[in-house]
Amino acid sequence: MFDIILLIVILYSIIIVMLESVPRFDNKFHNFFNISEWVVTILFTIEYILRLVCIKKPSKYIFSFFGIIDLLSTIPKYLTFFFLQSQYLTAFRALRLLRVFRILKLVRFVGESHNLARSIIASKTKIFVFIFFMLIISVLLGTIMYLVEGPTHGFNSIPHSIYWTIVTLTTVGYGDISPETPLGQFIATFIMIIGYGIIAVPTGIVSAEYATTLKSTKHQDKGRSCPNCSAEIYRLDAEYCRKCGHKLTEE
Amino acid sequence: MFDIILLIVILYSIIIVMLESVPRFDNKFHNFFNISEWVVTILFTIEYILRLVCIKKPSKYIFSFFGIIDLLSTIPKYLTFFFLQSQYLTAFRALRLLRVFRILKLVRFVGESHNLARSIIASKTKIFVFIFFMLIISVLLGTIMYLVEGPTHGFNSIPHSIYWTIVTLTTVGYGDISPETPLGQFIATFIMIIGYGIIAVPTGIVSAEYATTLKSTKHQDKGRSCPNCSAEIYRLDAEYCRKCGHKLTEE
Amino acid sequence: MFDIILLIVILYSIIIVMLESVPRFDNKFHNFFNISEWVVTILFTIEYILRLVCIKKPSKYIFSFFGIIDLLSTIPKYLTFFFLQSQYLTAFRALRLLRVFRILKLVRFVGESHNLARSIIASKTKIFVFIFFMLIISVLLGTIMYLVEGPTHGFNSIPHSIYWTIVTLTTVGYGDISPETPLGQFIATFIMIIGYGIIAVPTGIVSAEYATTLKSTKHQDKGRSCPNCSAEIYRLDAEYCRKCGHKLTEE
Amino acid sequence: MFDIILLIVILYSIIIVMLESVPRFDNKFHNFFNISEWVVTILFTIEYILRLVCIKKPSKYIFSFFGIIDLLSTIPKYLTFFFLQSQYLTAFRALRLLRVFRILKLVRFVGESHNLARSIIASKTKIFVFIFFMLIISVLLGTIMYLVEGPTHGFNSIPHSIYWTIVTLTTVGYGDISPETPLGQFIATFIMIIGYGIIAVPTGIVSAEYATTLKSTKHQDKGRSCPNCSAEIYRLDAEYCRKCGHKLTEE
Repeated sequence: MFDIILLIVILYSIIIVMLESVPRFDNKFHNFFNISEWVVTILFTIEYILRLVCIKKPSKYIFSFFGIIDLLSTIPKYLTFFFLQSQYLTAFRALRLLRVFRILKLVRFVGESHNLARSIIASKTKIFVFIFFMLIISVLLGTIMYLVEGPTHGFNSIPHSIYWTIVTLTTVGYGDISPETPLGQFIATFIMIIGYGIIAVPTGIVSAEYATTLKSTKHQDKGRSCPNCSAEIYRLDAEYCRKCGHKLTEE
Repeated sequence: MFDIILLIVILYSIIIVMLESVPRFDNKFHNFFNISEWVVTILFTIEYILRLVCIKKPSKYIFSFFGIIDLLSTIPKYLTFFFLQSQYLTAFRALRLLRVFRILKLVRFVGESHNLARSIIASKTKIFVFIFFMLIISVLLGTIMYLVEGPTHGFNSIPHSIYWTIVTLTTVGYGDISPETPLGQFIATFIMIIGYGIIAVPTGIVSAEYATTLKSTKHQDKGRSCPNCSAEIYRLDAEYCRKCGHKLTEE
Repeated sequence: MFDIILLIVILYSIIIVMLESVPRFDNKFHNFFNISEWVVTILFTIEYILRLVCIKKPSKYIFSFFGIIDLLSTIPKYLTFFFLQSQYLTAFRALRLLRVFRILKLVRFVGESHNLARSIIASKTKIFVFIFFMLIISVLLGTIMYLVEGPTHGFNSIPHSIYWTIVTLTTVGYGDISPETPLGQFIATFIMIIGYGIIAVPTGIVSAEYATTLKSTKHQDKGRSCPNCSAEIYRLDAEYCRKCGHKLTEE
Repeated sequence: MFDIILLIVILYSIIIVMLESVPRFDNKFHNFFNISEWVVTILFTIEYILRLVCIKKPSKYIFSFFGIIDLLSTIPKYLTFFFLQSQYLTAFRALRLLRVFRILKLVRFVGESHNLARSIIASKTKIFVFIFFMLIISVLLGTIMYLVEGPTHGFNSIPHSIYWTIVTLTTVGYGDISPETPLGQFIATFIMIIGYGIIAVPTGIVSAEYATTLKSTKHQDKGRSCPNCSAEIYRLDAEYCRKCGHKLTEE
């Protein structure tokens, strides 16, 4: 019950923040948005205080991931109170938008999905190495493209050229900058094929790791246990318990 | 026979709806399109009535997925008859286009492809969690981009900015809006690499689930066991049990 | 030796066809291209005649895939001889470009890569069903987008709108047409996420099928054969031959 | 310690090269960049000499991959000394940018990630065959598109048209050229669906190969066999053989 209300309040609050940024809506409903915002902020403050009271170790909660998120959901509005009359408009605007981090409160509602997380963590270093190599390739190819196309065709500087290379390598392809010389287009073609080919690498890693995680979980599901020492039996064709040597009878 | 005629009529009807929307064709063949449409509608009406008559429980059919689709394939044309002389032109146009849902009648012709559907259903919740996290990331990054680029560079509002983030994250990259400040381009690069990396996640999930489904199906299709020692027989062409040497008789 | 010369001639001929289409090169080297083309055509004619002479069943060769490709590599140039003085310029141009099909002659040089082909063939029907569903989704969403955005925002007709939907669904995203109304952008977002998610389906199918093919091949590699009837033994833990019931001794 | 300093110097040097290419920064900090560059070059020279002295076989190091990279990291700056007063400005600029290859020095810091490399090498020929077929398809479809759209819609020549086909096939989609005739858009749709479908092929290959590598590695790590009946022991925590009940002693 409490969870459902909380869910609705969070979603409502996110939508308010979004609509506020649309000039057309802000002109019309400015006061309504402001009042809504105060109501939501007070609700979140009450939630934060309740959590602090209910939990045995408040200090641990305050510095936990959700503790910080919960705090960030309430503070900005109170702070804007002080900035409103002053001239720090940009800081003020940034603070208002910080409220969008409330969406992270939703993470609480999601089931842990351990398998998925476990396979991503297991392939973490491999994916890091992969991104690292992608960045090295991007820097090299970006520099070459800067040399080939040059500032006259929109490749203004090396960082800008690297930005273009990543846009191409990840197959996003905005088209805000695109190669114009035949040599540049040839290299671009080469970059695209690399990008198209190496997308297989992270996919392959996650697929394989996930399949392994899935398989080990499945074995656990089907597993029998030894009637003598209650150790789990993983292999379907096992005839003796691997822990105590007890002969397993047919089930 | 009936199926083939139905297939042709459905495809013909879809093509008519499509061509009607091209002004050039509509001017030339307006009458032909109108008559075709009436013929098709009457054919579908006959089909609908026939199905109602043939099936034992008509009430179940009417409220089934295909029952509703079959009804939607006929009604719009009749309804346009009433709207034609009136001024509800938008509703009229929407109704005409509703006929395109007839294409769903084609689903009947597709083999069930159980394996595929089963593996997608099995990974349903995981894919939902994945899309949910993608939306959270989009909202956060979209807000940051709105703050960094602002309305002067085409990021007019937060919803618009989130739209851009999803365009980038899914590697679509229209280029109708593209970051112009160096910091914006740096963050865009970061979003692209995330998008390029996390495409591995749904792929990994479906691959692993499908592989599992495929394997279990293969075992079910082929699995026999030896009547003597009850060892599983994996090979379809096995004539003797590989465990006890017992001769397997034809089943 | 013959193969290497052939390979060079094919590649040379393709490059000539390509360069001819660049106006700048064509103006400069028109005569050189023409003479090259005649030399290549005569070489391919000789190759074709030689193949006809060497092969036992010429009729089978003529109507085979490679027979047709080999014929198509020679005829166009001879035919252009007749069209040159006449006015059929478009047909003439099309014929000239038909020569690019010579590139298919290269397929001969590629190893068969049986495993890969086998896994694609095995997943053929599934991929067909997948593309079929993708087309149904495209027609439906394309029609909805036509209704939402309309001809004023570049969605001129339903076929044009379906073209846009496929551009978005496959994450290509040219940006020649892009949604401009908030509702259109919301639906576009939805299409992108579908496209991003369902790319997992063909990948999952091919991965799983290929893994199965790979595994069965590996088992064959490692396989022992029965010393009595020389049937292959697939299972590593087999103790009796599955074909003749002969007891297998340890190796 | 030495490694960390080296890492910082490499990254610092890359950033300097990048920022130098931005006109705004170059105008302001030209002298600072020049001095930094000399300091970095001297540091790399010292590193190169130290490596030559420390290693037993210097000749082997000089012609190794890292030896060449280390040399290329120092030479350009010394060479620019000679080109500076002369008129070879393009060569001079190219040389300066060659320094970006220093980033390859970072490869030393990355763990070998043997599994990943092994599975990519194992699928090398398959990926080559795949890219080869993709190029054949691109040449054929590019020629057809050149014929259909022609120079009036931006498809200036066959190479340009092939460039567009690869942009579409790899789902990059810049939008600098896009089909404008209905037939061209229909073929483009067809190319996109091919591109979207065949991305599954390299992914499938790498996934399957990687899964195999992963599995065989795991088996190698864990595999023991029972000294009594020589059955394989899969579980690390097994204390008794699952086949004959023999007690396994610690190894």
